[in-house]
Amino acid sequence: MPELRKDPIVGRWVVLSEGRSERPSDFDEPLIQDRIDRGPCPFCVGNEGQTPPEVFALRGQGSRSDRAGWMTRVVPNKFPALEKKGDLDPRSDGPYRRMNGVGAHEIIIESTDHDRELSELDVAQVERVLTSCRERFVDLRSDPRLEYILLFKNHGARAGATLRHGHSQLIATPIVPLVVMEELEGSRAHYNGTGRCIFCDLVELERRERGRLVLENGRFLSVEPFAPRFPFETWILPKRHQAAFEEADGEDLAGLASILRSTLRRIRSALDRPHYNYVFHTAPCRDPRLEYYHWHIEITPKQTPIAGFEWGSGFYINPTSPEAAARILREVPS
Amino acid sequence: MPELRKDPIVGRWVVLSEGRSERPSDFDEPLIQDRIDRGPCPFCVGNEGQTPPEVFALRGQGSRSDRAGWMTRVVPNKFPALEKKGDLDPRSDGPYRRMNGVGAHEIIIESTDHDRELSELDVAQVERVLTSCRERFVDLRSDPRLEYILLFKNHGARAGATLRHGHSQLIATPIVPLVVMEELEGSRAHYNGTGRCIFCDLVELERRERGRLVLENGRFLSVEPFAPRFPFETWILPKRHQAAFEEADGEDLAGLASILRSTLRRIRSALDRPHYNYVFHTAPCRDPRLEYYHWHIEITPKQTPIAGFEWGSGFYINPTSPEAAARILREVPS
Repeated sequence: MPELRKDPIVGRWVVLSEGRSERPSDFDEPLIQDRIDRGPCPFCVGNEGQTPPEVFALRGQGSRSDRAGWMTRVVPNKFPALEKKGDLDPRSDGPYRRMNGVGAHEIIIESTDHDRELSELDVAQVERVLTSCRERFVDLRSDPRLEYILLFKNHGARAGATLRHGHSQLIATPIVPLVVMEELEGSRAHYNGTGRCIFCDLVELERRERGRLVLENGRFLSVEPFAPRFPFETWILPKRHQAAFEEADGEDLAGLASILRSTLRRIRSALDRPHYNYVFHTAPCRDPRLEYYHWHIEITPKQTPIAGFEWGSGFYINPTSPEAAARILREVPS
Repeated sequence: MPELRKDPIVGRWVVLSEGRSERPSDFDEPLIQDRIDRGPCPFCVGNEGQTPPEVFALRGQGSRSDRAGWMTRVVPNKFPALEKKGDLDPRSDGPYRRMNGVGAHEIIIESTDHDRELSELDVAQVERVLTSCRERFVDLRSDPRLEYILLFKNHGARAGATLRHGHSQLIATPIVPLVVMEELEGSRAHYNGTGRCIFCDLVELERRERGRLVLENGRFLSVEPFAPRFPFETWILPKRHQAAFEEADGEDLAGLASILRSTLRRIRSALDRPHYNYVFHTAPCRDPRLEYYHWHIEITPKQTPIAGFEWGSGFYINPTSPEAAARILREVPS
């Protein structure tokens, strides 16, 4: 059973998960190589038996679970960071706190195509991916042990991916992570001072100023944030107030599929297929309707490794201004 | 002039430094290769004219500034993230805050030997490096514009190094970085509750329990922290209470040189010459004698890239327990 431990000084939780180091990788060291073959891909059609049984799939009529015929497929991670079964059993030993590593760790297989990445799929398929993710949020948040669901993508070895076949992941945790807590606190402080959601304010400001705006459609916009950590860091935000991703309706998901795909295509074009992460920042499971918080996606291309200064300070050095990056992304072919 | 910008939600500062992307690198993409030759190394003897004029050096008697004869040499970074001259001129534009990128960014060249890394130098030379660093702290903290000095090392391309010749860096900033603020707040909360420094408590506890202890000498110990983010993350702490690195006396620096060198040698042995960072966590310039804070070094080997989950959550997945890592580091030859 993995273990959750809390740093007694800053309150950061870590997962000690000793089984994870044995998982396979089809990226070779030194990490940046192209795919190498190490047997069949567990995410390809015909290999459904190589994953744990699926927890959700969008399938053609009449097709059977864990067989071909799916369009998207969600499976538990075979090497999960957290485990579904068991009690939290929190305990203290002097200043040290720990609990059992209970949670969920799932893989969203984005299509049957081994080689195409998300931005290369058609927009209807991107929408299926997002619909599948939302279904998992709705299901998992009913588990009273789980406090937060983190949906993210590692694209490319430099961004931490170990398998090439296009996939996203979600990890549901029994505590609200520190980074999310900080965002919630910052947003709440703004709300307490002004009565407004800070993200709604930023949406309005960026739509008016336009210098950092990348794309806009009826429901969403993509912008370079004012203080980006990385060159071409890009955020996607819903234009109307919405605290939690799983509150998005069908029309929201269609708009999101379109802007997410176009934004990723522009980043890919501008940076020549960079490795990147994206992370959905959303409200905790118990608070899907907060007035002061607004869900969004943060896309962070990983062009260079993170160095000691950034680690030690949380203070990032970025050689590209968001205004310059936005101008390039607006002009580049998508 | 670089610009400092503050994220309006979480309060994280970033440095936008457009000149930095033009700096040379002798690590080739894909980043993990061995050194390749791109002309003479600016940190080698005989090439002193390739760096900005030195701000400090330990030199043989009679040798002249910016000429051969040095043992350690501190020079401004030729491509600084922050600039020494100018006023902060802080300004606001709605929710957005920025100021001029005033600060210092210096390189501590650790020896005249191009190929030896810090742990391969003799202990007297490591002590010279630490003495040189302390001298720079004492000088820089008298500048009233500067609030914090961050001393760190990027070893190897995967840890963000761009030049091979052994060096550390320091960046002095006009604001206290977010990560440091969090550590100060956590420590203060413990002190307010107990009247004790949490780091002093941890030193006592780890010396008693011994399971996470790596090394100990008269003045310092090195331990695997209870909740490590990375496999073989190792901290070095002074045994007696001391808030700021620059308060260390000569005997402290001798003890630190010895334990830092031995700890790095053991990590190198255990992980087969890993890329790593270390960061000195120390008190802000204006508060060198805090009762509740205790300076220390955090060494973080970088075996795998940081993935989206970690980015999005500040919640790290680590496959190696600190107890297992400590046992290995105690037993490995150094």
